[in-house]
Amino acid sequence: MKKNIAVVTGAGSGLGEQLVYALHARDYFVVLVGRDPAKLDKVSKRLRDNFLNIAIDISIKENVDTIFREVMAIDGVLDTVVHCAGEGVFAKVGAFDDHDLERVFSANLYGTILISQGALNAFGDRGGTLVNVMSTAANVAKAGESIYCAAKWGAKGFTESLRLETKGSNIRILSVYPGGMDTPFWDEASDMMPDTSTFMDPKEVAEIIIDNLRNKPSLQVTELTINRR
Amino acid sequence: MKKNIAVVTGAGSGLGEQLVYALHARDYFVVLVGRDPAKLDKVSKRLRDNFLNIAIDISIKENVDTIFREVMAIDGVLDTVVHCAGEGVFAKVGAFDDHDLERVFSANLYGTILISQGALNAFGDRGGTLVNVMSTAANVAKAGESIYCAAKWGAKGFTESLRLETKGSNIRILSVYPGGMDTPFWDEASDMMPDTSTFMDPKEVAEIIIDNLRNKPSLQVTELTINRR
Repeated sequence: MKKNIAVVTGAGSGLGEQLVYALHARDYFVVLVGRDPAKLDKVSKRLRDNFLNIAIDISIKENVDTIFREVMAIDGVLDTVVHCAGEGVFAKVGAFDDHDLERVFSANLYGTILISQGALNAFGDRGGTLVNVMSTAANVAKAGESIYCAAKWGAKGFTESLRLETKGSNIRILSVYPGGMDTPFWDEASDMMPDTSTFMDPKEVAEIIIDNLRNKPSLQVTELTINRR
Repeated sequence: MKKNIAVVTGAGSGLGEQLVYALHARDYFVVLVGRDPAKLDKVSKRLRDNFLNIAIDISIKENVDTIFREVMAIDGVLDTVVHCAGEGVFAKVGAFDDHDLERVFSANLYGTILISQGALNAFGDRGGTLVNVMSTAANVAKAGESIYCAAKWGAKGFTESLRLETKGSNIRILSVYPGGMDTPFWDEASDMMPDTSTFMDPKEVAEIIIDNLRNKPSLQVTELTINRR
């Protein structure tokens, strides 16, 4: 029997890394997507087999086309695409420049749109599961996080519109809104590095997400908000 | 007494054009911002005096700096900035390319962030009124409008976060969500040109917005949704 394939973006660290392990443990062939090849190598060293690393920037359409071309060449069935890549840019409005905007919108917003579109086209009529991992910042406004909120609210508006477009099809979409996790995300996000030791363990968050991918006969989870206890 | 200055983006046509006339009629010195100099000329020909045209693309930080440098050189007091520029890109998810994304996010999202930031810095401690015109698409998901919704939800997430950051200051922020208007907006938005003859008159929408800029002693309008009867 052919293996089910799962694609994970942001696979080099944090929640993406943990999703890779969790999906691989459930017998998926896992495609690890991230910008830094060294990080992908480090993660996939723990897998031994049934994986493919693709080191690429997902904010450009041509690159996303490359990813799904490589995925379709694998001897397996594309079942699940988890878009987990994201980057925080935290500061008060006042000195944002073009580089800040490009940085905050690339993976968080452009990546969400392009990966979702690539997944949909690759799933075809057979269908599949798309998981868009956003943030609690997609649901509320936050002082000091205005452009990060912009990116996440945008990703949510896109995903909810896509849900309407795919209603009645075999495409399943799960939106995930996790609160702060104890991951390298915070290293580059802000000058004010928070104490992340009390934040959520990304391994636990990954387990919750995977658990909620199981379809029941009459229902599916469509939105999942996860906060620390 | 020095004139109050109002800056209007998207001033070359549609709602922006009508806001120019309405503000000028209320004795503002009006700065018209838009990409097409011919359109700005056509609008400002009806004003005779107390105006300045700036033909520029507002999705680039350097250009927005130029706008506010020119505004600060005017013999007047910057009172109101209305960000009205926007562009529709309507289609189902499937074939969006980098150009579509750049087009939909430039004025709708990058422009909202950069103009808001420029206005804030130019207002300084004295304060002023920022009006961000979005769309009803900022509040609901819409099939066939996924990337337009992404841009507008993003602009809303940004604006609401900025509202939290400016709480207690002299900055006043009005978010406007108009439904469909009978304007040239639709010409380039979609292959499926809707019948706009029953849509709202942008002149009426402009009047409603201006009416809601009047502060009362104990209150101000912070969000305004406008739909056709």
